[in-house]
Amino acid sequence: VPPEPPVLYPSLAELENYMGLALTSEEIQKNLPPEGSTALTPAGPPPGQLVAPLSGNSAGLRRAEIKPGVREIHLCKDERGKTGLRLKNVDEGIFVQLVKANSPAALVGLRFGDQVLQVDGQSCAGWSSRRAQRALRKAAPEKIVMVVRDRPFQRTVTVHKDSTGHIGVVVKKGKIVSLAKDSSAARNGLLTHHCLCEVNGQNVIGMKDKQLTEVLAGAGNVVTLTIIPTVIYEHMVKRLSPGLVKSAMDHSVPDL
Amino acid sequence: VPPEPPVLYPSLAELENYMGLALTSEEIQKNLPPEGSTALTPAGPPPGQLVAPLSGNSAGLRRAEIKPGVREIHLCKDERGKTGLRLKNVDEGIFVQLVKANSPAALVGLRFGDQVLQVDGQSCAGWSSRRAQRALRKAAPEKIVMVVRDRPFQRTVTVHKDSTGHIGVVVKKGKIVSLAKDSSAARNGLLTHHCLCEVNGQNVIGMKDKQLTEVLAGAGNVVTLTIIPTVIYEHMVKRLSPGLVKSAMDHSVPDL
Repeated sequence: VPPEPPVLYPSLAELENYMGLALTSEEIQKNLPPEGSTALTPAGPPPGQLVAPLSGNSAGLRRAEIKPGVREIHLCKDERGKTGLRLKNVDEGIFVQLVKANSPAALVGLRFGDQVLQVDGQSCAGWSSRRAQRALRKAAPEKIVMVVRDRPFQRTVTVHKDSTGHIGVVVKKGKIVSLAKDSSAARNGLLTHHCLCEVNGQNVIGMKDKQLTEVLAGAGNVVTLTIIPTVIYEHMVKRLSPGLVKSAMDHSVPDL
Repeated sequence: VPPEPPVLYPSLAELENYMGLALTSEEIQKNLPPEGSTALTPAGPPPGQLVAPLSGNSAGLRRAEIKPGVREIHLCKDERGKTGLRLKNVDEGIFVQLVKANSPAALVGLRFGDQVLQVDGQSCAGWSSRRAQRALRKAAPEKIVMVVRDRPFQRTVTVHKDSTGHIGVVVKKGKIVSLAKDSSAARNGLLTHHCLCEVNGQNVIGMKDKQLTEVLAGAGNVVTLTIIPTVIYEHMVKRLSPGLVKSAMDHSVPDL
């Protein structure tokens, strides 16, 4: 039995060949999806389709899908040399704490809660928030290569509005505080003590409840919510200025 | 536009037809996978296969896969009228807190952390632990129908052993306390403050560290770990006797 290679993500320059795949940087480049698209995982059937499948046209479901595995993204700094990305150490991993609106990070599809595994070939494990931010600062402005795991602390739950347009959650300050009896939210197992991260893939963190209500109202009958336990959320935004979250966070609707 | 049905999982007897699908109980029964198999979600490609795909023979990965969507299972009590299942209210949802070894619950593939959405057609949202346990007690011994969401608080990370057989985590009392520099665990973004739930799909909760080390040693070069944040784990096992966890928990290797 051939020995397993000792590393999973070594410098790509060293890993020429794995299980018969050509894995030089050039080969990877040729196979990357078109610019602007970030997902390298194979597109599969949308999740959560079982007894009552969702319409194949559910863009919200596709935008919200938390993709398994990891992806490689290329970030390019803006004219002021900024990425618009704030990183934080959580449990010895590096996570996206903030993505500023209209920033390179927003453009390339990074989202709150994404775990950054590598920056320019270096593993981020054990880095302090400060070290991670420094790595971004020192990186080449024309391309920063990051290996990212998709929002590991989050999950999605898809619900249907009832005849009055409600899904059955009461949300206060972005947190689910109660579930309505006999509602889609209750039936599908939405939970209290969770923060709403996204509605149909659109980041709603930092939105005032009023704006969040409008987003929910405009969401169509099938709503895919991305949620995170409140205890985890609060750990992730520790020392992040609430003003920054409210004013600067990217709330654009992701491209598909 | 036809109105969306107001519920996602009503009593199946009422939901004869949805989007052109025949959904009477008979129709569902005909389409259930063979007895003993519990997954109703479509089998897709194993997750996490990107730049360095895992061998297609990774049984551990398949056993550990957290399946999207929900599944319906049929539980049958044992000769003493027991299910071997302990349920708990977490955040207004009902979760599997304990699965006893060699019990009907173990047989049917229920695992620690599964969320139970329905018991015999009734939504569990907002039930107390006591009410959930009572529902099991009062249910017909020959068949309890449950709708289950697969381990929503958990996630999987796949790592490779290095040439000395190590993955690069230090585990104490079932919790990851540190990551070894330049290890597969570090590279793949395993995190501290997480409990190990499974190794290659086999439940390791409640195992002594010594036994857990043996399971890891015997696991083969590719190891898929199922982890849960410690804060969530401790919330889920509150008031569950540690003695029960250590002595009674099912640790069998799941069938594929």
